[in-house]
Parts: sequence; structure tokens; C-alpha cells
Amino acid sequence: MVKNKMHKKNIKKDNIFQVYGYNNCLPLLKKTQYEIISINILDQKKDFFASKINFQKYSNFIRLLNKNDFYNKYYGIRSQGIVVKFKGPIVKEIKNYKAVNSDSCLLILDNIEDPQNVGQIIRTAECAGINGIVFPSYNSFRVSNTIINVSQGAFLNMPLYEVTNVSTTILDLKKNDHWVIGIENSIESKSWSQLDYTGHIAIVVGSEGKGIRKKVIEHCDFLGNIPMQGDINSLNVSAAASAILFERLRQIKFKE
Amino acid sequence: MVKNKMHKKNIKKDNIFQVYGYNNCLPLLKKTQYEIISINILDQKKDFFASKINFQKYSNFIRLLNKNDFYNKYYGIRSQGIVVKFKGPIVKEIKNYKAVNSDSCLLILDNIEDPQNVGQIIRTAECAGINGIVFPSYNSFRVSNTIINVSQGAFLNMPLYEVTNVSTTILDLKKNDHWVIGIENSIESKSWSQLDYTGHIAIVVGSEGKGIRKKVIEHCDFLGNIPMQGDINSLNVSAAASAILFERLRQIKFKE
Repeated sequence: MVKNKMHKKNIKKDNIFQVYGYNNCLPLLKKTQYEIISINILDQKKDFFASKINFQKYSNFIRLLNKNDFYNKYYGIRSQGIVVKFKGPIVKEIKNYKAVNSDSCLLILDNIEDPQNVGQIIRTAECAGINGIVFPSYNSFRVSNTIINVSQGAFLNMPLYEVTNVSTTILDLKKNDHWVIGIENSIESKSWSQLDYTGHIAIVVGSEGKGIRKKVIEHCDFLGNIPMQGDINSLNVSAAASAILFERLRQIKFKE
Repeated sequence: MVKNKMHKKNIKKDNIFQVYGYNNCLPLLKKTQYEIISINILDQKKDFFASKINFQKYSNFIRLLNKNDFYNKYYGIRSQGIVVKFKGPIVKEIKNYKAVNSDSCLLILDNIEDPQNVGQIIRTAECAGINGIVFPSYNSFRVSNTIINVSQGAFLNMPLYEVTNVSTTILDLKKNDHWVIGIENSIESKSWSQLDYTGHIAIVVGSEGKGIRKKVIEHCDFLGNIPMQGDINSLNVSAAASAILFERLRQIKFKE
């Protein structure tokens, strides 16, 4: 069997991750698609976690550590007394993507590298009812422990689609009945809330410094901007994503 | 002269801060209300900064450091080759606050401690045209280097009002013609976009975990919530603030 490049890359992503804290660990241990490697628990919190986790099912993986050992091992981490190691799959393929709901939205992250921002965006996207996040293999973040921990459990529910070429993906999405909206300050762009986000859409955002790549912008059907009201003229990309994704939610929730 | 408690506290805040990076340092050096203590510059970037900063005016404060010295001193900091030390005033008093514009908005942060979130909120608030941020002296963040650096220069333009008692401040604002909106998931609250944010308003947000304190909620005229669309049910407070503040901007920009 000949495996294509894309496939190989996804398999490579199926590596070991470490998450900590209630929001990441507890829902993870309710899922079935991940291979659990270890569950380290602060022994003084044993009773609490016994009420949240199926200790019998995970008996081979649970290790209770005393205070000294636990904090030596996880110094500086906001663990809340639990750290889980597991194996992917975190990244999915997007081939022949078709929207399921009448209102559906993918978020495309172009040129974005900062893992804090990416983790926050995944979290916000989950809360705003987004159907998936698309990002390129190159000139982009890599899925990392930081990203999935910052997402506060959202990585479990939000499909993350890694693609070789964002422009190709956009063309495919257009063929499959999607409108594509780029958020970029440019002369031809409309104010963010004057765009129509209902139906099947994909929203593209870029990094604060570099914006969306020119080639990708050329493939967008519509361009929108968030007009800056102050002097600093630099909205964080995760704050911009939140403004856009909740404007979309407003439109689909309260459309006539 | 008898100085009141509030006054003393503000004076205490007038301590030394350290900022780094273009967005924080360059606009700071254009302002006049701060006392500059030192301007440390990576010597290989001297020409660049000479074109941005009045070297003559600041000649007593500028120190050019070679690569080794600079990076030893500022290891791990995204300095972009410049670090400035200065003295406040960062925090203001809000006594007898009166709105100047026909649409005006204060953002009240109740129970919020995480400096990353606070810095991001200050940044977003500046971009969204908010008139000031109010926070209590107790059970709250303290203005710190982290907060002002994360704000990316927004701290220079955004009044930060520290108050002894949020409830008293809310009552004062109401006397001075403000409506107060609390963002909190509760049965009686409306969807965030169904609220009217035009005119003179104050918006209260709380921390993700604890929300707004009960006493403060009781003083709000209206309550709104952002309905969660996924499973994790936990939007970061700075993402929530962004959704709310840009919904307000939409309403005041596109009102009939």
C-alpha cells in the first residue's frame, strides 16, 4: 500500500502528550480513542479523583505519588494534583470535508505560531460552536503540550485538521459549498459585523504581525476587518478570533 | 493635610516598572507623565532605535549594551533589543467620574487575579474603544510588570482605576448616569447580544472560576451571559471580554 505524504505526517503526530489539571485530564479519561500511558495522582487527592475516574479500569496506569515526589516531578505546573500521559490521535485529515449542520464554520489559522494563542483559540472556538480548526504543516505552530493544555479540554472536542496547503483546502471547501471569509485590515474589507456568517463558511485569521499570506487572501470570497478604536492598533489574534466567532454565533442564533 | 486611604494606596502604586519590546517602550518614551529611570538598548540595534527615540533628550538614561551583556541581563524576555525602567503613575482615582462621550463604557474587573488575562483585557479594551478599567484593591490582581507588558502599550492609553469598594463605585456611577451590566451565567440573564450597550454604561466581568461576587451582581441593572456551545463550558475571561466589548462596538457603530 502506498501511503501519501499527508498520511505519514499525521501518523508522526500521533506522539506522546502530557496534560494536567481537571479540565484536561478528567474528560480525556472518559474518551476511548486515546491510548493512556500513565496517570500520576497526588496521593492526598486520591479520594477526590476516585470519585471522578474509573480507578478499576485504569488500575494499571494510576500511580499515587506523595507530596514531595509529585511536586518535585511537576514543579511549576498548575496540575491540580493530576498529570496524564497519552498518545494521540490529535490531528485529523480534512479530505472531502462536508458540512453536516445548516450553519457550519471552520476556522483556518494561517501563519500563526504562538502556542498560547493557538490554545486559547481552540478553547474559544469550542465555546463558540465552531466545527473544526484548519492549519498548515509549514510556517505554523505544531500541536504541542502547551497548546493542548491551554485549550482546557477543548482539544478533545475540536477537530484539528492539518493540511499541506491552505489554498488547496480553501478551493476544496469552496467546491463543497463553503464561503470563505478572511479577516484582514485592507481597503476593500468590510467591518467585521457587516459580513454574513450564516450557512457553510470558513473564516481565515492570520498572525498579528504578518497577517494572512497574500495567496491565501486571494482565495477568500469576502474580507472583513475589526476597526481599531485606540492608538495601539494591535489586537491579539485570539481576542480577534473571539470577537469574530461570537459575532457569527449572534448571527446564527438571532437570524430572522 | 489628611490623606485618605485611597490616596495612599495610589501613591504606593507609583513604583518602578520595567517594560520591553517596541510596542511598550516606543510609545512610553513619547509620553511626558512618566519618570524614566533607564533605557537599555542592544548596541547592534542602535541605529534603528536612534530613528525612533529622541536620543538627545534621553541621553542621560540610555545605555548601549553589547550582545552578551544584554542577553545575560534579559534572558528569556522578548525584548526586541530594548528594556525601559520607569516610575508610574499607572493607577488613577475614579472619584466623581463623568462620561465625556455620548457612548461611553467602563469595564469593571471583579475577582480577577491572573495577570496574563488582565494584560490581554487591557489590550482588547484599548482596541475596542473602552474608556477605562476599574478594579478593586482587594481580592484582585495588582498592577505588575507582567500585566503592563502583556498589554502591549495599551496601559499607556487605558485609564486604570483602582477602587476600595466595587459596589460603592457602581452606586456612584449609577448616580452619574450610567447603566451597569453584569456578565454572568444565571437564569435571569439574557443572551449577551440582546442587551443594549449604547449610552453610558459599565460592564462587569468576573473570573472564570468564581464569577462576579454576589454583592456586586446585586447592584447590576442588567445581567447577560454568553451561551456556551460546546462541552467544556469554560470561556477564558479575556475571550469573553473580547466578545462583549466588540458586541458593544457593533451596537454603537451601527445603531439606527
